Amino acid sequence: MMLKELREKVYEANMDLPKHGLVVFTWGNASELDREKGLFVIKPSGVDYDELTPESMVVCDLDGKVVEGDLNPSSDTATHAALYRAWGEKIGGVVHTHSRSAVAWAQAGRDIPAYGTTHADYFYGPVPCMRGLSEEEIERAYELETGNVIIEGFTERGIDPVAVPAALVRNHGPFTWGKDAAAAVYHAVVVEEVARMAIGTEALAPHCGPAPQYLLDKHYLRKHGPNAYYGQGGAH
Amino acid sequence: MMLKELREKVYEANMDLPKHGLVVFTWGNASELDREKGLFVIKPSGVDYDELTPESMVVCDLDGKVVEGDLNPSSDTATHAALYRAWGEKIGGVVHTHSRSAVAWAQAGRDIPAYGTTHADYFYGPVPCMRGLSEEEIERAYELETGNVIIEGFTERGIDPVAVPAALVRNHGPFTWGKDAAAAVYHAVVVEEVARMAIGTEALAPHCGPAPQYLLDKHYLRKHGPNAYYGQGGAH
Amino acid sequence: MMLKELREKVYEANMDLPKHGLVVFTWGNASELDREKGLFVIKPSGVDYDELTPESMVVCDLDGKVVEGDLNPSSDTATHAALYRAWGEKIGGVVHTHSRSAVAWAQAGRDIPAYGTTHADYFYGPVPCMRGLSEEEIERAYELETGNVIIEGFTERGIDPVAVPAALVRNHGPFTWGKDAAAAVYHAVVVEEVARMAIGTEALAPHCGPAPQYLLDKHYLRKHGPNAYYGQGGAH
Amino acid sequence: MMLKELREKVYEANMDLPKHGLVVFTWGNASELDREKGLFVIKPSGVDYDELTPESMVVCDLDGKVVEGDLNPSSDTATHAALYRAWGEKIGGVVHTHSRSAVAWAQAGRDIPAYGTTHADYFYGPVPCMRGLSEEEIERAYELETGNVIIEGFTERGIDPVAVPAALVRNHGPFTWGKDAAAAVYHAVVVEEVARMAIGTEALAPHCGPAPQYLLDKHYLRKHGPNAYYGQGGAH
Repeated sequence: MMLKELREKVYEANMDLPKHGLVVFTWGNASELDREKGLFVIKPSGVDYDELTPESMVVCDLDGKVVEGDLNPSSDTATHAALYRAWGEKIGGVVHTHSRSAVAWAQAGRDIPAYGTTHADYFYGPVPCMRGLSEEEIERAYELETGNVIIEGFTERGIDPVAVPAALVRNHGPFTWGKDAAAAVYHAVVVEEVARMAIGTEALAPHCGPAPQYLLDKHYLRKHGPNAYYGQGGAH
Repeated sequence: MMLKELREKVYEANMDLPKHGLVVFTWGNASELDREKGLFVIKPSGVDYDELTPESMVVCDLDGKVVEGDLNPSSDTATHAALYRAWGEKIGGVVHTHSRSAVAWAQAGRDIPAYGTTHADYFYGPVPCMRGLSEEEIERAYELETGNVIIEGFTERGIDPVAVPAALVRNHGPFTWGKDAAAAVYHAVVVEEVARMAIGTEALAPHCGPAPQYLLDKHYLRKHGPNAYYGQGGAH
Repeated sequence: MMLKELREKVYEANMDLPKHGLVVFTWGNASELDREKGLFVIKPSGVDYDELTPESMVVCDLDGKVVEGDLNPSSDTATHAALYRAWGEKIGGVVHTHSRSAVAWAQAGRDIPAYGTTHADYFYGPVPCMRGLSEEEIERAYELETGNVIIEGFTERGIDPVAVPAALVRNHGPFTWGKDAAAAVYHAVVVEEVARMAIGTEALAPHCGPAPQYLLDKHYLRKHGPNAYYGQGGAH
Repeated sequence: MMLKELREKVYEANMDLPKHGLVVFTWGNASELDREKGLFVIKPSGVDYDELTPESMVVCDLDGKVVEGDLNPSSDTATHAALYRAWGEKIGGVVHTHSRSAVAWAQAGRDIPAYGTTHADYFYGPVPCMRGLSEEEIERAYELETGNVIIEGFTERGIDPVAVPAALVRNHGPFTWGKDAAAAVYHAVVVEEVARMAIGTEALAPHCGPAPQYLLDKHYLRKHGPNAYYGQGGAH
């Protein structure tokens, strides 16, 4: 069996999603890339979390084709593959969930503003909500085009996917990523937290703007980049 | 004792309701139909979940009369019976809860709009809120007429109960159904999730409409019907 | 030691409050009346729940004076005593909590409207919010006057405390009662549930009125009174 | 190893933060002062809660310099140090969290009004939201200036930090304190509870003012000061 260690990591990342309260039933998936081999490991589609095993994970190539595995891979596999093809030098793990507060923003068709330091610690700017897919895109290749719309959105708005490791797919929900599957899970937790906090903030102060840019800079940069001083010298 | 296996299934379905956080105290019930025998098994009325056993389940005929069981059946038995009489070729399990967010919509007298794909994956259109019962209907046969109002609402609005396996009874709460009791429980979880997400969406974007129809089509049809490709070949 | 069995019941009722998520730290108390002896048993003041024992409960007379017990009784003892003096023929248990949603209504100074059947199953009309205490009342005998304001509110508005076993003390929180301490705990859970549902309902339909009176009648009366048919013949 | 007992206490206080649901990942920290030695013990930066031990806690002097410990102290150490330098005669423990509802208020840039007795039992007046830090302050010494802004806010508004043991740092989150680390944790729980209740209150009654001053006085003073009568003679 290929990629034994990676299967284990992806299995653990998937199991962490319901533990963090991000996923009910089978509504989420995590994957991780083996950059050298050009393969990624992803959760099988529609399998209950308590029936998952490292062995049931599916190995795919960067076109999203199954290379090893008895089960169908996640129905979102083509989205994961598109993100790895575009950003595989920068990111090594992808997660998708239907976590409640992030979905509320995605359904509202709105970016999550950077209202505070919880947000800025991980996302260097608003978490962007992508444009909706056209009917033609949906019919042609829905999951692939979902990935393309994310890449297009980041490119057009000049957002670095390392600095903002999350996107809201309109009327759908959050995709997050990171250096590996565990980091993508971490960011899935953060995007749900900041989405929830921001709903509260808007209820209390409907017209408050985002936090000042210099505060956002400070928080992001004390955790990330060459001058980071948070933690013990190893960032997420 | 009759229908031993079905009693076990209905018992398990009922026990899943508090596990999913849908029910406090005794505020919920699940049943399942034995189509060939024309009987269904349902939870007894007002018994604590931790005192339930497969043996305490009650067997009723399609008029809602008790066929076997020492306890009174759920006070909502006539509603379950009405749904099986009308739709028993299509549905095999029914659930009723007072889950919080779905009740909030039912009390507001509003359909839950199809704001996103979480909704569309299971409900092919809004989850409809039924008209209120008249005083005369309530006095005549409250629980029976509750079932009738659901059937009337679906018929008048041309909604297929297989495509939208949930209804909100006005000023009351959700009823859900499915191919068996487990599927009805599943849909009870989903209706609470989408009800909660939709409250958040309306807070963030009061005038946003539902998701585009072609997106709703895509999500429903990738999970249901002859061209479904979600999961491992067996949908709920 | 007096009232051994009653101490046990009151202990259990108090322990159920944090189990139901109604109480953090020591922010709640339950008591039960021994009608014949004219005594009631109540939680000691400010003691952590995991240090409570049946023996640490405090026995008081109907003036709220300690009859047996080494610890100070709950600071709300005079409120409990006032309710037993006024309504002791009808009620046998009292509970006070600071549960979140019920407190939100109390702080807003508003009755919880009877928006649906979850409410009507236990409260035959709105859960009333009392008038605020005057400065003079607070200075004279705060906890006693809190009880008096509840009694006054029910009397002036013609509400039967058996039909509506809950009140919101303005800017404070819910008091509930019932035939014994366990029933009062039950009603404390219900008032929090309906308070939470009603916040959601108002967000979705700001001007919706209460449920029709005939629906409220039906639900209350199918659970309570001579023609009740919910459950197995023993109501709460 | 220095301050063995204090390390144990600070370890326990930190471990209580995720138990109370106030902290996800590493987003919180607690410290406690040894007033005689002029040292305080604080959590290390960015270490997972399940890897913490009493030995991994860091000892700092009142300038925030590490005196003993292999790990970097919390990135918020300079804020803790500033509070101890200014108020060390009065307070002995400090906590910082990103708890959801308190952050929502901090991001909204608003004081939490004293809407009721839950609030008044612990905070004698609104929980104040501090002014934002200037760009210059952030660049010069962010964490130190965060502490200075809290001290300045309390001084300018004439608030006694013992009477109001919590502050909201604008666009950031709550800091709380108390006689020791455990008391600061307690106040961190309370500020989250009252923040959450107050969001509900504003949804229900947007223009309701705070509770009357004489009610707030009564509740604060029955728990605190020479005439306190809540509990068993030992307040928090």
